[in-house]
Amino acid sequence: MKLHVLTALTAVFAFTSLVQAEEGMWLYSNPPRQQLKEKYGFDASEPWLDHLMKSSVRFNSGGSGSFVSGDGLVITNHHVGADALQKFSTKENNYLRDGFYAKNAGEEIKCVDLELNVLQNIEDVTIRVNAAIPAGITGSEAALARRKIFAEIEKESLDKTGFRSDVVTLYQGGEYHLYRFKRYTDVRLVFAPEAQAAFYGGDPDNFEFPRYDLDVCFFRVYENDKAVQPVNYLKWSAAGAAEGELVFVSGHPGSTRRLLTIPELEYIRDIQIPFVENLLKRREVLLLSWSGRSQENARRAKEELFSLQNSRKVYDGRIAALQDPVFFGAKVAAEKTFKQQLAARPDSAAALAAYAKIAAAQKTLAGIVLRYRFLEGGAGLNAESFAIARELLRAGEERPKPNGERLKEYADAKRESFELDLFSDKPVYPDFETLTLADSLTSMVEQLGAEDPTIRAILNGQSPRARAADLINRTKVRDVALRKQLYEGGSAAVAQANDPMIELARLIDSEARELRKIAEAQDEIKQQAQAAISKVRFAIQGTSNYPDATFSLRLSYGTVKGYEENGAHVPATTAIAGLYARSAEQNDRPPFDLPPRWIAKKSALDLTVPFNFVSTNDIIGGNSGSPIVNRAAEFVGIIFDGNIQSLSEDYGYTDVQSRALSVHSAGILEALRKVYEVPNLVNELVKGKR
Amino acid sequence: MKLHVLTALTAVFAFTSLVQAEEGMWLYSNPPRQQLKEKYGFDASEPWLDHLMKSSVRFNSGGSGSFVSGDGLVITNHHVGADALQKFSTKENNYLRDGFYAKNAGEEIKCVDLELNVLQNIEDVTIRVNAAIPAGITGSEAALARRKIFAEIEKESLDKTGFRSDVVTLYQGGEYHLYRFKRYTDVRLVFAPEAQAAFYGGDPDNFEFPRYDLDVCFFRVYENDKAVQPVNYLKWSAAGAAEGELVFVSGHPGSTRRLLTIPELEYIRDIQIPFVENLLKRREVLLLSWSGRSQENARRAKEELFSLQNSRKVYDGRIAALQDPVFFGAKVAAEKTFKQQLAARPDSAAALAAYAKIAAAQKTLAGIVLRYRFLEGGAGLNAESFAIARELLRAGEERPKPNGERLKEYADAKRESFELDLFSDKPVYPDFETLTLADSLTSMVEQLGAEDPTIRAILNGQSPRARAADLINRTKVRDVALRKQLYEGGSAAVAQANDPMIELARLIDSEARELRKIAEAQDEIKQQAQAAISKVRFAIQGTSNYPDATFSLRLSYGTVKGYEENGAHVPATTAIAGLYARSAEQNDRPPFDLPPRWIAKKSALDLTVPFNFVSTNDIIGGNSGSPIVNRAAEFVGIIFDGNIQSLSEDYGYTDVQSRALSVHSAGILEALRKVYEVPNLVNELVKGKR
Repeated sequence: MKLHVLTALTAVFAFTSLVQAEEGMWLYSNPPRQQLKEKYGFDASEPWLDHLMKSSVRFNSGGSGSFVSGDGLVITNHHVGADALQKFSTKENNYLRDGFYAKNAGEEIKCVDLELNVLQNIEDVTIRVNAAIPAGITGSEAALARRKIFAEIEKESLDKTGFRSDVVTLYQGGEYHLYRFKRYTDVRLVFAPEAQAAFYGGDPDNFEFPRYDLDVCFFRVYENDKAVQPVNYLKWSAAGAAEGELVFVSGHPGSTRRLLTIPELEYIRDIQIPFVENLLKRREVLLLSWSGRSQENARRAKEELFSLQNSRKVYDGRIAALQDPVFFGAKVAAEKTFKQQLAARPDSAAALAAYAKIAAAQKTLAGIVLRYRFLEGGAGLNAESFAIARELLRAGEERPKPNGERLKEYADAKRESFELDLFSDKPVYPDFETLTLADSLTSMVEQLGAEDPTIRAILNGQSPRARAADLINRTKVRDVALRKQLYEGGSAAVAQANDPMIELARLIDSEARELRKIAEAQDEIKQQAQAAISKVRFAIQGTSNYPDATFSLRLSYGTVKGYEENGAHVPATTAIAGLYARSAEQNDRPPFDLPPRWIAKKSALDLTVPFNFVSTNDIIGGNSGSPIVNRAAEFVGIIFDGNIQSLSEDYGYTDVQSRALSVHSAGILEALRKVYEVPNLVNELVKGKR
Repeated sequence: MKLHVLTALTAVFAFTSLVQAEEGMWLYSNPPRQQLKEKYGFDASEPWLDHLMKSSVRFNSGGSGSFVSGDGLVITNHHVGADALQKFSTKENNYLRDGFYAKNAGEEIKCVDLELNVLQNIEDVTIRVNAAIPAGITGSEAALARRKIFAEIEKESLDKTGFRSDVVTLYQGGEYHLYRFKRYTDVRLVFAPEAQAAFYGGDPDNFEFPRYDLDVCFFRVYENDKAVQPVNYLKWSAAGAAEGELVFVSGHPGSTRRLLTIPELEYIRDIQIPFVENLLKRREVLLLSWSGRSQENARRAKEELFSLQNSRKVYDGRIAALQDPVFFGAKVAAEKTFKQQLAARPDSAAALAAYAKIAAAQKTLAGIVLRYRFLEGGAGLNAESFAIARELLRAGEERPKPNGERLKEYADAKRESFELDLFSDKPVYPDFETLTLADSLTSMVEQLGAEDPTIRAILNGQSPRARAADLINRTKVRDVALRKQLYEGGSAAVAQANDPMIELARLIDSEARELRKIAEAQDEIKQQAQAAISKVRFAIQGTSNYPDATFSLRLSYGTVKGYEENGAHVPATTAIAGLYARSAEQNDRPPFDLPPRWIAKKSALDLTVPFNFVSTNDIIGGNSGSPIVNRAAEFVGIIFDGNIQSLSEDYGYTDVQSRALSVHSAGILEALRKVYEVPNLVNELVKGKR
């Protein structure tokens, strides 16, 4: 990883309007039209932008997608759909592992709790939000006031428009925008390949390139039991992306930390990532070991295991960037320079003071983080049953409160999504629950101490393993009907149930809420401080820059382009032939074994067809499943990964080696035609209609 | 795991002479003759004991074994021999994976650096050691005095007898015994099965029972290029162990912590195990992930990976015991009771004061443990190249000092073993070294802090990954000839080499040595305190109890006996048929796949022959490879594991569910005859001669 260019430029970009090459996760409300015109002579017109925006889909489970037919067909990554696939898979029908195809509408399977959102419009509500926070108040008081105004704006918008309405915090509190979404909850599976084709090469090849993954699946969106007919969907490009071509990614990058101050980055480097890495690696070992005991165990753990391994690579990449003295030194130097700029201006007193406030808040957070993570964050009680128990407990307590005074996940605007999740009948396996609960209790006892009063109360005289088994055996919250009954009955019914898991949630709830209150108060202090810094930054730069990612819809542009690595050129595109070559060089051992179907159909395939490709688009986790389109807004591929060099992009962008990875639209068609032989689906993609 | 019986009894055993059922890792100098006579009517005569002692072999790499023929044939576990197998395996000849058989003496392969020890006699040197520590001195001064007298006794004995001579600390410092060993360094491989037969079921089945593992391998010991002809070797029992039979284990349990005080156990529970567990799980994930990238990676990492996974299960088992409020509460109560006994006696002032001293020392250790582990313990610089570099640096500095003043691993008595290890030409792979060094540096930066001056000096302005690659690429210490040259040239030659890895070792050496000095001083304080406690315990109990394990030869007795688990009876013995059944129920997926040779030879086998069995012997890590013998001192099996319930035995023994696992002598013969078809080896075992 050649970081010298990255870091030199990072130092500049974050605090001036000098944006590098293809950098940027741009707001649809502030697209990079000027840059595109100057650099590529391309006019990103209002209709072009509106069409792309409304063709883009957000998967609430944490990913992106797009409409690719006028009959409501949505494409996303297999690994974005995996959560839904896992939930209706059983021991007998393992769709996640074996794939699925609905030959006709009747065979499409409805997902248990999947919610899709399509952005309709964006409104700047910064002035209204700021006006609701009385001058001079801070901490938890200000946080409450902000939560209230958020809830008020969201509810008002929901009532008026019927759209799901989320107030989104941008520029770390510099701006607030209201995002209105069309919301879909009847989503049905149309096609998924076998996991071995989707995630070919598994964890070893994850975040690597060259790659040969068919990481796609197709859903169809319904309303009133009929397939929706979206006006905006992407036309499928049979030729797909070409080397050197200008391409756009429209999706939902989850979060970046490019505008954070040094104390915040130090906290991430020294406290947050080490904690999370230990947790991830501990759980990975736990699930791998348990999966080894039987094939059914392996099936039950597979999806969470994938997610853990993916996150572990991400954090390994991030800590590598932050521990690099050159990279981190450049961030430190850039902040110093910006502070000197501030010191020279008459309007910067508040911004300068803000840095000290952030540092102090960060210190307070460091003091509570362990207890917060274990007791409120759930790291010490890692079981679906506990999460459900707490939701029932808190719903009973929060619902009677005025909308704006509730914990934010209980706000009216989020109610439907919350209930969809709470009443999901996804399978919850007691053996798996006992395993993860026992291990997380063990970890919590290690870190908070066996003699801690809260720990002693939680264990109730038992060992972590015995306590976990006891709780999971006795709780009734896995029963969906009972959940509904307790939810509707409110806090009295919840108390009367006398469920051991709910009572455990109650036991720690006052401490957990107190920790959350402290944490939210610090976040509020930081947000106000960041707003003060942003204000001066806007004064210097205008809003010619883009805000950090927040799982809101963004537009990124770039070119299809290879890179140099270890002295060799890595071409931009792989062909289907490469899949067979990779398998051969690994003697077909897992996870490099070819799916039987791909062995059988090899001779039918045109092996020269492009399969995966890389581009310089600025993306990050959450962009999975994003469509990648050409100037004509045609679908030329689908984002599914970044290379290992892109993992530092949480803190800064470079196009030297950092690349976004996509499945090529031509490769998808070739596989659907000749390996999976699904002519109906192919026709729908090619024609844009069934 | 039914702990109530265990803990009730544990509470008793540790502090009185009431030893439970089959408990005890007995000294050969103080065998349980009375118990054996009373309980089993068995007379463990002096000649019987002497024969068993001299037939027992210690593998210095960390395991046990025994002579099983008059031509120097030694049997141990495959996993004990694995280190040696790995070292002469190559990409082309993977003996560790594929197995090996020498049809004749000429084909036997000499191990790179294996050292075997056979105990000849034991001498109590307690009075001489104690006399050498002037009254009233403590801490590092006393530690130095003790090191001096150890070195003096060991050197004197070595010079006089020619035997390797080690002073062994027993009863936490209550006694000191001199162990004299015949030492063998020309050890040649005769037979090893494929790893898949030896470690069938892999990590998932490790520490589980029923089992079906052929965890054995055979070496032959040479002197002056001729096979040794030991007077004492074990006669092979073709029938093997029978249910209910009295059996003995003669081997080298590594360590137990049954006599530790509560503050010491708290330290282990709250600090030591959490640290070690994070380290183990982190490395396991690292090696698994790297192994996934290619088959050659997997081969290079395999042995360390096995060791990590094994240790991880051990520590998971230990923390489970210590975090159990019932188990730990019983230990606390027992200590309280013993202290009350002490308070009632006139001779116990020093013993009572000792508890406070131990607690204070433990607190000091807690304050330095992180830096100690990373800088002196090597946890932050996990690469063979670093270990070698430090050995060269320190050898140059230590050798010129008087024998007794050196760091203990540089004492004259250990010189031959040290040099054997340092000049070993075992393969050291730069890519693997870079991987482990980078990861351990990352972990150290996380835990000691990126701004720590030592850390900044170690990184030298580079990221952990870049620094690791740079160090491993530039160091020359992987060249054995250079190592010899530097070792012989002493500190001047070492300095002149200007090797980056040696210079890194030098950079941290003064801090590392200082940390070690503090740690050793605390250990000395604890040892003196334990000696004071032991003195009163001896006064109350006599030496009718056994000391904690210390990798010194011990005798344990027990019976071949099944147990109850989850309401079902687990029979004592498995048959060869069970291997095929286990594979079938797992669809033959790894690590449950049958070795091809076992598939091919199935019809030739008598499937009813016993394969593995359990007994109530009190064993722990280090006992791997120990012979298990009957009343006639015949070889009836070989210890290779304990079940999962036995993992609490670090702190206390129970025979309720806790079991030692062995490979049955009849199963070994059946496999050698019919699967491996090695008649020469079979004849030698049966006849006791070639």
